[in-house]
Amino acid sequence: MTRILIRIQYDGSGFNGYQKQLNGRTVQDALERALSVIHKANSWPCTSSGRTDTAVHGLNQAVHFDTPLSISMERWPMALNSVLPDDVQVLQAMTVPAGFHARYDTVGKVYRYRIYTTGSRDVFRRHYAHHVKGNLDPVRIQKAAAHLEGTHDFTSMTSAKTEVVDKVRTLFRVQVEQNGDDLELVFVGSGFLYQMVRVLTGTLLKIGSGEWEPAIIPQIIARKDRIAAGPTAPGNGLYLEDVFYDEESLQAYLRELDEPAGGRT
Amino acid sequence: MTRILIRIQYDGSGFNGYQKQLNGRTVQDALERALSVIHKANSWPCTSSGRTDTAVHGLNQAVHFDTPLSISMERWPMALNSVLPDDVQVLQAMTVPAGFHARYDTVGKVYRYRIYTTGSRDVFRRHYAHHVKGNLDPVRIQKAAAHLEGTHDFTSMTSAKTEVVDKVRTLFRVQVEQNGDDLELVFVGSGFLYQMVRVLTGTLLKIGSGEWEPAIIPQIIARKDRIAAGPTAPGNGLYLEDVFYDEESLQAYLRELDEPAGGRT
Repeated sequence: MTRILIRIQYDGSGFNGYQKQLNGRTVQDALERALSVIHKANSWPCTSSGRTDTAVHGLNQAVHFDTPLSISMERWPMALNSVLPDDVQVLQAMTVPAGFHARYDTVGKVYRYRIYTTGSRDVFRRHYAHHVKGNLDPVRIQKAAAHLEGTHDFTSMTSAKTEVVDKVRTLFRVQVEQNGDDLELVFVGSGFLYQMVRVLTGTLLKIGSGEWEPAIIPQIIARKDRIAAGPTAPGNGLYLEDVFYDEESLQAYLRELDEPAGGRT
Repeated sequence: MTRILIRIQYDGSGFNGYQKQLNGRTVQDALERALSVIHKANSWPCTSSGRTDTAVHGLNQAVHFDTPLSISMERWPMALNSVLPDDVQVLQAMTVPAGFHARYDTVGKVYRYRIYTTGSRDVFRRHYAHHVKGNLDPVRIQKAAAHLEGTHDFTSMTSAKTEVVDKVRTLFRVQVEQNGDDLELVFVGSGFLYQMVRVLTGTLLKIGSGEWEPAIIPQIIARKDRIAAGPTAPGNGLYLEDVFYDEESLQAYLRELDEPAGGRT
């Protein structure tokens, strides 16, 4: 058996999230069905870096699976894409050691939340960005974001339904980017709790609109109660942008964030 | 009763076309339901400039209806948008004379077909542009396009199922535009037959890929047989961009097309 790590992209608008479940169409279902077709098996399991919620998109999600087939790494994406639905696509495949694990071996993840405030809502963006009425002040959001960086107990910033016991996570960077008319919130962290990015975003929006002050962040964290934070922002503006398995790639990404926006691709 | 002309935008991906029908969700259904809510009636009819097919988008579609209500033209879009689903939006409303007709009074329409050839298919564009494998030569397409301009019997370029008897139409302009990595085909005409823009596009793609020569166009037109033309391109890349009711607006649009792409908005 060879263990293979694939990178995938998916449009979350037609899925009930990544993780397979009793009802509804999921990304994992689509992948496992494609893998079972290629392996001529009834089912074929795969393991992702973590789930994403309903409506949330994946730009470079990471998934591993084992295979006895001797398909080349160049041909794997094509083979899988030929049987995948048109809203999931394999970008790349690489062999990894048998002990590699897509979830446990991550050293960092990047989420990006897209917001637009200009004009009225755009029917073509309804699945791809969150429309906010009124102005948002990026300077206020960046001030608040600085309070989020570091290692904290994020109990206030995750769904009250989270079953994970240890709610301490490290945010390496929370950055506000102006991308044309869009405001994008970039979250780089060691790992994220259930709905954490959406609660962080809902909270930062309260600050960007002027309703709350940036200095409220340390108070919210200290409360360790979900009720202290802002609302959960909708899933449609959220993208799992990248997943890192080595420190160098993570550091390279963080250095890229430091460059002026025009210099990045 | 006041006759009102509204301009609407819709994402065609969730609709079985514009025109109401026995089965499936349509844009007209959505509009008439919204109008009936506002008028507190069981139904409320409206008339568009023409139907669009399944998956085809509307950027500035025109629709008229009559109303006894005294809502201001500024408030009509907001009133309708508050009850419309999130994939249709009213952009603007204006009063028109009682004799105005959204379909019969058009002096021209613009359709735009979006194509991308770069890389592999993009899951986020599957509803919004047509992916073509391999290169397309815009110079060949523009040469062929010149043969399409003018007044012709477009029997070869419409669905064989078309029930309209008179298949003579005038294409004022067929233009190829490079928009970043996208190739866009712009069709400005007096009116269009059923599936005409999609057959024109399918034919131009055969020429752009090098399979057919630009000079084949006059032969295809002369044949007056649907079988002579290329395949019907999929609906997802197609946008009804604009509908004109006065000669000046149409001429202004055509002049804009003559300006270098950088100069236009």
